[in-house]
Amino acid sequence: MPQQPGHPAHPDWPHAISVGLLRLILPAIFVVADGYAAAGSADTLHAWNGGPTKTALVQFVKDVTTEGGPDYVPPAERIAVFSNDGTLAPELPCGVQLAFALDRVKALAAKHPQWRSKEPFRSALARNMKALAAQGVRGSLQLVAATCSGMSTDEFSETVRSWLEKARNARLNRRYTQCPYLPMQELLAFLRGNGFTCYLISSGDLAFMRIWAEKAYGMDPDQVIGSPCRMKFQVRKSGSVLIRLPEFDLLGEGAVRPGGIDRAMGRRPIAAFGSADSDLEMLQYATGGSGRHIGLIIHHTNGGNEFAYDRKAAFGRLDKALDAAKKSGWVIADMTKDWNRVFTKVEK
Amino acid sequence: MPQQPGHPAHPDWPHAISVGLLRLILPAIFVVADGYAAAGSADTLHAWNGGPTKTALVQFVKDVTTEGGPDYVPPAERIAVFSNDGTLAPELPCGVQLAFALDRVKALAAKHPQWRSKEPFRSALARNMKALAAQGVRGSLQLVAATCSGMSTDEFSETVRSWLEKARNARLNRRYTQCPYLPMQELLAFLRGNGFTCYLISSGDLAFMRIWAEKAYGMDPDQVIGSPCRMKFQVRKSGSVLIRLPEFDLLGEGAVRPGGIDRAMGRRPIAAFGSADSDLEMLQYATGGSGRHIGLIIHHTNGGNEFAYDRKAAFGRLDKALDAAKKSGWVIADMTKDWNRVFTKVEK
Repeated sequence: MPQQPGHPAHPDWPHAISVGLLRLILPAIFVVADGYAAAGSADTLHAWNGGPTKTALVQFVKDVTTEGGPDYVPPAERIAVFSNDGTLAPELPCGVQLAFALDRVKALAAKHPQWRSKEPFRSALARNMKALAAQGVRGSLQLVAATCSGMSTDEFSETVRSWLEKARNARLNRRYTQCPYLPMQELLAFLRGNGFTCYLISSGDLAFMRIWAEKAYGMDPDQVIGSPCRMKFQVRKSGSVLIRLPEFDLLGEGAVRPGGIDRAMGRRPIAAFGSADSDLEMLQYATGGSGRHIGLIIHHTNGGNEFAYDRKAAFGRLDKALDAAKKSGWVIADMTKDWNRVFTKVEK
Repeated sequence: MPQQPGHPAHPDWPHAISVGLLRLILPAIFVVADGYAAAGSADTLHAWNGGPTKTALVQFVKDVTTEGGPDYVPPAERIAVFSNDGTLAPELPCGVQLAFALDRVKALAAKHPQWRSKEPFRSALARNMKALAAQGVRGSLQLVAATCSGMSTDEFSETVRSWLEKARNARLNRRYTQCPYLPMQELLAFLRGNGFTCYLISSGDLAFMRIWAEKAYGMDPDQVIGSPCRMKFQVRKSGSVLIRLPEFDLLGEGAVRPGGIDRAMGRRPIAAFGSADSDLEMLQYATGGSGRHIGLIIHHTNGGNEFAYDRKAAFGRLDKALDAAKKSGWVIADMTKDWNRVFTKVEK
């Protein structure tokens, strides 16, 4: 049994793989020696600058893991929820699910001439991001519904996996799987190293987000909450399949999020990480219980290395939630002040 | 680190507690020494007689856990799904959720005089089980909706927990929490000891079944699939709460079950355990993939120690699924032949 899984010395290790590996190794160590937290020590947080934000994170974890302390939380109840777009990965020019949907629409457009004059397809074909943002999650799910229905869940997975292997964020000049923020990958590892289970919450297609979450953050499929599409069960000679239907249950956005969280896990999270007004209720839910908790908002202030936006943004508007953060004592992570690096280094 | 967690020598140990304990201890052992399976050995299955049924179960587990073997399945994909009523616990005179709903209706009847002439309340007040069975899961969820709405999820949990502490199955003369079948508790421990995650699937109220599954089988809340009630999120001065609404999404019954399973876990189970026609599609789904799998049906043949019923039963009818079992190669566990004990011994 390894005594010191530690953190690789070089900060440019491929995180998507390493975090997945850590997830496999860490539970064994922390179940048999709860409290021993080499890989879960604050030294994991290299890309976070010292200061009130990092201190608040480290103190929170210390409080809930100190056995016998007033704020101790047993491992099964150490649940953290993360929004995707803008929190764990960039949402500009658009989030990863919308990028997938746009490519699907483009690939299938020749077979659907009517799309040229019908929303949200017209805006999708024109890559009119402002118009798409205005149509919200319903618009992007409509694109997914039109381009990914009538196929089995296995066929859909294959389609998403192939796409993720190649798809690139052109503005950031890197593959989507290389886009997750380094400080947030470190935070996931730090929390998991301290017995937390980390969930991804998105308004996007549940099946898509599960594959993304596995590749990008090493999350299990049952650690993802999203909008499930309805399905039809079919028994065939060769076996049985689930066929995707072009209808979604919206469980991941705004005021229905707390209910979606309860439905998926049956427990109230004690830590929530968001970046936009659509994360407001998730933060209110996680920080509305009686025990020790933390709410944190990523504030996109880094126009040099990423993007700078808040109260007037088309995607990821942060306005009400920023005011609520100040009133509610949530931590605000300023990307310029609190992070010394945004991304992993990649070979272009 | 204990080398031999083993099985308590005395078979009358309180299973509800011990299985929960095993769940905590076993993962640590099996993650660090996968393949070493003292507590997961077939010796766990004391209440199962030797014969083709037990052999089929043990061989299946051996096949999927033999590293390098043609049927090896990694631990993360070792998923077993269990129906509740009739499979893990008796469903006569009625399942545990309906028993709860009946008591709630009785307790609140004085405030609702109109219930005396309105279905399904009239049948509930008259304890007319045949009429209630005919109204199916919708009837029983209607009783839960009428008696458990407008309260917070925390208040509901409290109500269920108090009820479970005292409620008794009069026909079996024991508390409901003492009703789970001993051989099935052993099977849960055997599977978990071999790296499986065991899920409960029910058409009943998700929140109710989660509390039941924790008490009865040591399952985590996210290992339960059921019918979630819709909820309203409220922010109060004292914190935030989820209020139960009198509407349910039916995700746990019949043909929608496979979709409900996918929605909850995002993986196809490789083992399914049922006892009635309502479990048919769950069995078809779990046994309809390409790898090694097992489907098993509990056949209620033991009228002396439990109840005897199948093709014409009002609750838990087993007709189509019994025919499908023979055609599909599913294992049929005959309660008289395959089990040497049905229940744990309890102080009355």
